[in-house]
Amino acid sequence: MINKKIRDYGINIGNFTTGSNNSITDVKGVKVGHTTLDDGVIKTGVTAILPHEGNIFKDKLIAACHVINGFGKSTGLIQIEELGTIETPIILTNTLSVGIAHETLVRYMLAQNDDIGSTTGTVNPVICECNDGVINDIRGLHIKQEHIYEAIEKCNIEFAEGNIGAGTGMVCYGLKGGIGSSSRIVELENTQYTIGVLVLSNFGSLEDFVLNGDHIGPKLVEKTKEIDTTEDKGSIIVILATDIPLSSRQLKRIIKRVYPGISRTGSYTGNGSGEVVIGFSTANIIKHYEEKDVIDIRVINENKINKIFKATVEATEEAILNSLICSTSSIDRDGKQVYSLKDLI
Amino acid sequence: MINKKIRDYGINIGNFTTGSNNSITDVKGVKVGHTTLDDGVIKTGVTAILPHEGNIFKDKLIAACHVINGFGKSTGLIQIEELGTIETPIILTNTLSVGIAHETLVRYMLAQNDDIGSTTGTVNPVICECNDGVINDIRGLHIKQEHIYEAIEKCNIEFAEGNIGAGTGMVCYGLKGGIGSSSRIVELENTQYTIGVLVLSNFGSLEDFVLNGDHIGPKLVEKTKEIDTTEDKGSIIVILATDIPLSSRQLKRIIKRVYPGISRTGSYTGNGSGEVVIGFSTANIIKHYEEKDVIDIRVINENKINKIFKATVEATEEAILNSLICSTSSIDRDGKQVYSLKDLI
Amino acid sequence: MINKKIRDYGINIGNFTTGSNNSITDVKGVKVGHTTLDDGVIKTGVTAILPHEGNIFKDKLIAACHVINGFGKSTGLIQIEELGTIETPIILTNTLSVGIAHETLVRYMLAQNDDIGSTTGTVNPVICECNDGVINDIRGLHIKQEHIYEAIEKCNIEFAEGNIGAGTGMVCYGLKGGIGSSSRIVELENTQYTIGVLVLSNFGSLEDFVLNGDHIGPKLVEKTKEIDTTEDKGSIIVILATDIPLSSRQLKRIIKRVYPGISRTGSYTGNGSGEVVIGFSTANIIKHYEEKDVIDIRVINENKINKIFKATVEATEEAILNSLICSTSSIDRDGKQVYSLKDLI
Amino acid sequence: MINKKIRDYGINIGNFTTGSNNSITDVKGVKVGHTTLDDGVIKTGVTAILPHEGNIFKDKLIAACHVINGFGKSTGLIQIEELGTIETPIILTNTLSVGIAHETLVRYMLAQNDDIGSTTGTVNPVICECNDGVINDIRGLHIKQEHIYEAIEKCNIEFAEGNIGAGTGMVCYGLKGGIGSSSRIVELENTQYTIGVLVLSNFGSLEDFVLNGDHIGPKLVEKTKEIDTTEDKGSIIVILATDIPLSSRQLKRIIKRVYPGISRTGSYTGNGSGEVVIGFSTANIIKHYEEKDVIDIRVINENKINKIFKATVEATEEAILNSLICSTSSIDRDGKQVYSLKDLI
Repeated sequence: MINKKIRDYGINIGNFTTGSNNSITDVKGVKVGHTTLDDGVIKTGVTAILPHEGNIFKDKLIAACHVINGFGKSTGLIQIEELGTIETPIILTNTLSVGIAHETLVRYMLAQNDDIGSTTGTVNPVICECNDGVINDIRGLHIKQEHIYEAIEKCNIEFAEGNIGAGTGMVCYGLKGGIGSSSRIVELENTQYTIGVLVLSNFGSLEDFVLNGDHIGPKLVEKTKEIDTTEDKGSIIVILATDIPLSSRQLKRIIKRVYPGISRTGSYTGNGSGEVVIGFSTANIIKHYEEKDVIDIRVINENKINKIFKATVEATEEAILNSLICSTSSIDRDGKQVYSLKDLI
Repeated sequence: MINKKIRDYGINIGNFTTGSNNSITDVKGVKVGHTTLDDGVIKTGVTAILPHEGNIFKDKLIAACHVINGFGKSTGLIQIEELGTIETPIILTNTLSVGIAHETLVRYMLAQNDDIGSTTGTVNPVICECNDGVINDIRGLHIKQEHIYEAIEKCNIEFAEGNIGAGTGMVCYGLKGGIGSSSRIVELENTQYTIGVLVLSNFGSLEDFVLNGDHIGPKLVEKTKEIDTTEDKGSIIVILATDIPLSSRQLKRIIKRVYPGISRTGSYTGNGSGEVVIGFSTANIIKHYEEKDVIDIRVINENKINKIFKATVEATEEAILNSLICSTSSIDRDGKQVYSLKDLI
Repeated sequence: MINKKIRDYGINIGNFTTGSNNSITDVKGVKVGHTTLDDGVIKTGVTAILPHEGNIFKDKLIAACHVINGFGKSTGLIQIEELGTIETPIILTNTLSVGIAHETLVRYMLAQNDDIGSTTGTVNPVICECNDGVINDIRGLHIKQEHIYEAIEKCNIEFAEGNIGAGTGMVCYGLKGGIGSSSRIVELENTQYTIGVLVLSNFGSLEDFVLNGDHIGPKLVEKTKEIDTTEDKGSIIVILATDIPLSSRQLKRIIKRVYPGISRTGSYTGNGSGEVVIGFSTANIIKHYEEKDVIDIRVINENKINKIFKATVEATEEAILNSLICSTSSIDRDGKQVYSLKDLI
Repeated sequence: MINKKIRDYGINIGNFTTGSNNSITDVKGVKVGHTTLDDGVIKTGVTAILPHEGNIFKDKLIAACHVINGFGKSTGLIQIEELGTIETPIILTNTLSVGIAHETLVRYMLAQNDDIGSTTGTVNPVICECNDGVINDIRGLHIKQEHIYEAIEKCNIEFAEGNIGAGTGMVCYGLKGGIGSSSRIVELENTQYTIGVLVLSNFGSLEDFVLNGDHIGPKLVEKTKEIDTTEDKGSIIVILATDIPLSSRQLKRIIKRVYPGISRTGSYTGNGSGEVVIGFSTANIIKHYEEKDVIDIRVINENKINKIFKATVEATEEAILNSLICSTSSIDRDGKQVYSLKDLI
C-alpha cells in the first residue's frame, strides 16, 4: 500500500465491494503515472492515465464526457462527444499548462503512430486541468515537455494519491486536495466487472465539507481559522474507467452519476468550478482501421444499470475523500498553512 | 402509384438509387397511415408512422432525435435522447391537437399492453406537429380520438403524399405543402440497406425556394402576387427510418444531415420554425423484458458513414419536393389561393 | 399555516432565511392550485403553477429547463430551451394524463387569447409529470378537463403540500411523497430577492433516504418491512421561481444546482427517473407584441451567483422534505401501507 | 483592396448590403492578422482575430459557440457555452499546433494581465483548427511561439484572404481554400448594424461544389483529373462578429444559421469534419471586475431575428467563396496540383 486511504481509518463508503487495490487501475489495463514538481512556490505536476496497454490510437475505446460546470479549459471533449471514443492517454495538469501538455501529447502520439497527419487524419488529445494557483506559482508555467513524458512513462498499476502529480498544488474544501482513487465491483450475469474512479480534487469550501454523511466542515473551520474558506473557487476532474460493456450513451448516463457522488462530500458546485467527467470502457475495441462495415458491440441491458449508478456514486465520493486523506499539509503562496485532512481528524 | 412524385416530372435528386417505392415504407416493417379532415375551414388531419409490425413497446427500436430549431411542441424527445429508443408509433398532427393525440396514443398503447402502468412503467408517446393555422381552423380543435385511431389502423406500405393526413393544412414555401417521402439504397459489405425519409413540410418563404438547385422562388413569387410570402413562419418534421445497424449516437449524427437536405430547398430556418427530426433503425431490437444482462448490438463502422450522410441529404431534399409536388392547391382562411407547385411549373 | 412543515419539527435546512411562507409563492405573483382525486384506487390529481398574475402569453417570462434524467414525458421543454421563455401556466399531473392536461391548457390559453392560432402563432403548453401508478389506478385515465381547469382556478398564494393535487398518488423514498415547497431570501445590492422551489416528489429508495444529513433510511426500512424499497423507480419534477433578474443562461446554471439539492436527500437518480427542472424569473417581461427592436433586460453580475446556487440547493432539499413530512400515509394498489414520514419519526 | 473577392467577379451572394470592406473587420473594433509559413512542404500558418481593441480579459464580450460536427480539436468551447463570454483573442492554426497556440495565448494574456493566476482566476484561450496535412508537413509542428505573437501583433482592419495565415495549407472542395470573409448590414430601429463572418475553409469534395446556386463541381472535377476528390475529409471554422445587441442564447441561435450557409456551397458535412462556429457581439461589455450586482444588457426583440438569420446565411456562403477565390494554387505533399478556383473558372 502506497498511501493510507480513507478505509484505513475505518471509514467505509457505501455498500459495494471495492476492487483489489480500491483504485482505477483495478480495471484491467488501466495505468496511472505522476510527475511532481515541489520546490518552493513551484508546487504543481502532471498525472497521466493510460486507458489500456496497447496502441490507443489504433485500438480506440468507447468513451463519453459530461460537463457539470463548464468554467474549465479541458480539451478533447467535443470529439469524445461526437464520436464516442478516446484515442490517447488522458493528461491532467494545471490550467495554464494545458498548452504544453497538448503539444507534448501530440508529439507522443506522432512518435507512436507514423500514420497520424500523414496517411490518416490527426489525433484528439485529451487534457484536463484544475487551477492550482492558490499554492503554485501557476503564472511561471513550470510544466515542461519532459514532465509530461515522465508521467506517461511512469504509468503503473500502483500509484500514489494525495498531493502528488497534477494534485501537487490542489486545494479541496480548503484542505490539501489532489489525486484520489477508488473502485467498485459490480456483478452482471455471474461476471464481476470493475468501476474505477480517479479524481483531481480542487473545489469546495471547508464549511460545506461532509465526511461520509457527517457534516464536519464547520467544526474544521474553527480549527483552521487563518485560511479563507468562504468562497468555492475550484474545480474537479473525474476520470471513470470500467470493463463493463457499454455504449457511449450508456456510459454518459453513468458518468452523470458522478455529480451525486461529489454532492455527498458537501459541494454545491461553485460558479468558478470546472467540473468535467470523462469515462471510458475497455470492453469493446473500436479499431482505427476496421475492415468490416458492420461490427458487433457488447452493451448492457439498461434495466440493470441502477447498480452501476450506485457504485459510481460511491466510488466518486470515496475517491474525493482519498484525495484529501492521502494529502499532506502544504503552504500557499501567501505563506499560509493549507491543512491536510489527516492533521485535523 | 398513388401520387405523381417529383421524379415523375423528370427531376432526379442526387445520385443514389431510390428504394422500390421511393418511400419511407421501403424500410421493411415501416407503415404509414392518414386521416384527413377537409371540410370548409376544417383542413387538418393525422398521419401515423408504425416503426415495425410487432409490439413496439415490448420490442423497442434504437432511435435518436435532433432539434434544428426548437420553436415547436413535439413530445417524447427527452426520453428518446436519454434512452436512445422509441416504443410507440409516431403521430403527426397540428400543433394544438398534440394533447388529444397524446392521450389517444396512450389509450392505444394501454389497450395493446396490459402491463403498462400496472406491472411495468409507463410509456413515452411521440407526437410531432406543425401549425396549419394559415389554412385550417386550428382553434377549433377538430382532431378527435377516432381520427388518431383511424390513422394508426390505416397504416400501410402504400400511402398518399401531399395535402393529406397531417399535411392537409400545411403551407411550405408559400405553396401547398404537407406529407412527402423518399428513400435511398446504401450498400455496406455487399448488403443493400434502405434509408427512408418522411416529412411534414410547413416552412419557408416562396422567394427562397430552390428546386433541385434552381432558385425558382422569385419567379414563382411573380405568379402568385396575392399571397404573403415575406416571412418564414412555419416548421418541418422529418422522420427517418432505416434498416442500417446503428447506435443511437450514430443515428443522431445521421439525422443531423437532414439540415443540409432542408437547406438545399432554400430555407434559412426562420425564427418560428419548429424543426424536429426523429430517426429510428429497425436493425436491432431492444426488448422491454430483456433477460440477459449483456447484449450484442450491431452498429456500423463509422468510417463508412459518409455515404449514409449523403443519402440522407438527398432523401430529405426529395421528400420535401415530393410534399410540394404531390399537393393540390387550397384556399386559406382568408379565402386566398394557396397554390400547389404543380399549378406553377 | 396549512401544513406542518419540516421546520415545524425543528429541522432547519441550511443557512439562508426563508421567505415569509417558506413557499414558492413567496415570489411575488406566483400562485399554486390543486385538484385532488382520492377515491379508492383513484388517487391522483393536478397541480397548477401560475408564473404571474397577468396574461402570461402576452407577457412572457424568461425561463430555462434542465433534464437531470430524461426517463420522463414532460412537454414544452424544447421551446423553453430555444426561446428562453415560458408563456403558459405549468401543469403537473400523472404521466398518462399529460395528453388531457395538454389539450386543456391549450383550451385555457385559447379562451384567454383570441389571437393564438388566428392572427399570431400557437402556444407552448408546459406539462410535467410523474408516474403515480404504485398507488393510483393510472391506467384508468381519471383526470378530466374539469380537473385541470379547477387546479388553475384554485391558484392562490396559500396552498397545501404533501399528498394533494398532482402529489396525491406519489411515493418518494418508499414513503408517501407529493407536493413540497420552500423558499430562500438572497440579497443583492441591498435588495432582497426570493428563490422559491416546488417539487413533485416520486423517487428514491427508502434505504437511501437522508434527513438533513442523517442517513436514517436503513432504520426506517426496518420499521416498514412489508413495502418493497429495493428499486428506485420514480421521478421528480422541480419548479423554481425567482424575482432575481436573470438571463435564461444564468437561470439554467441555477436550476442545475437542483441536482445537489436532490442528492442531499440521498438519491443517486435511478434509471427510471424522469428528473426535470423548470425555472422562471419574474424580473423581466418579454412582450409577445414588443414594439422596440432592441430591449434592455436586467441580469445579475455572475460573480455574485454563488449565493444563489447555495440557496437553490437548500430550498430544493427542504422542498423535498416538506413533500414527505406534509404527506399522510396511504394504501397502494396491492393494499400495502405506504407510510408517511410523520408515521415513522 | 488586398484580394479580388467573389463580388469582383460579378458574383453577388444574396440580397443584403455588405459592409464597407465586405469583411469581418467591418464590425467596429474587430481586427485580423496573419502569420504565413510557406517554404517547400511547410505550408501552414496562424490567423488571429481580436474581438475588440481593449483588454479583452477585463472587458469580456458576450459569445456563443456551436459544434456542427465535432470531429475537431478546438479549445475553449465549454467555457463559452457555460458563461456566454469570450475573454481572449481567437487563434486559428493547424490541428497539431493547437498546443503551442494555447500556451502562447496564455503567455500573451499573462503579460497583459498580471492578475490572472495571481489575484484572480485563470483564462480561457480559444484556439480553433483545421487539418492542413494534405499540403503541409503537419507532423513537423512548424508553428512556434513567435508565429502566434506575430499574428496577434499584425492584427489590422485590412487583412488578406485566401491561402494565407492559418489558411496557407487548407484545401476546400478539392481546391485551394483558406481564409475568407464577408459582411452584411442589417437595420434595426433605424440603426445600421453589421454582421461579419470569417471562415477557415478546409472541407468538401469537388464534385459537391456549388457556386452561387450553380452546381459546377462535376464540371470542375473533369478539369482536375489528377486530384482525389472522392472523400470529404476536412473541416471548417467559422467566426461570426457583430455589433447587434444580443444575449448568448440569441447569438447561439444566429450562429446555428451558419450551417445553411455552408450547405449552400454544396457540402453534406463529412464524418471527419470539425465544423465549429464561434460568435461574439461587441454591443455589451461584461466587466471582469463588475461592481454592480445587477446589470443591464441590451438584446434584440427576437421577433426581428429573421433578417439576422438570413444575413448570416449569406455572409457565410460568401465568406467560403471568398476563401476559394482569393486563394492561389498550390502543390500537395505528393507533388500534385491543388487548383485554385481562379484557375478553373
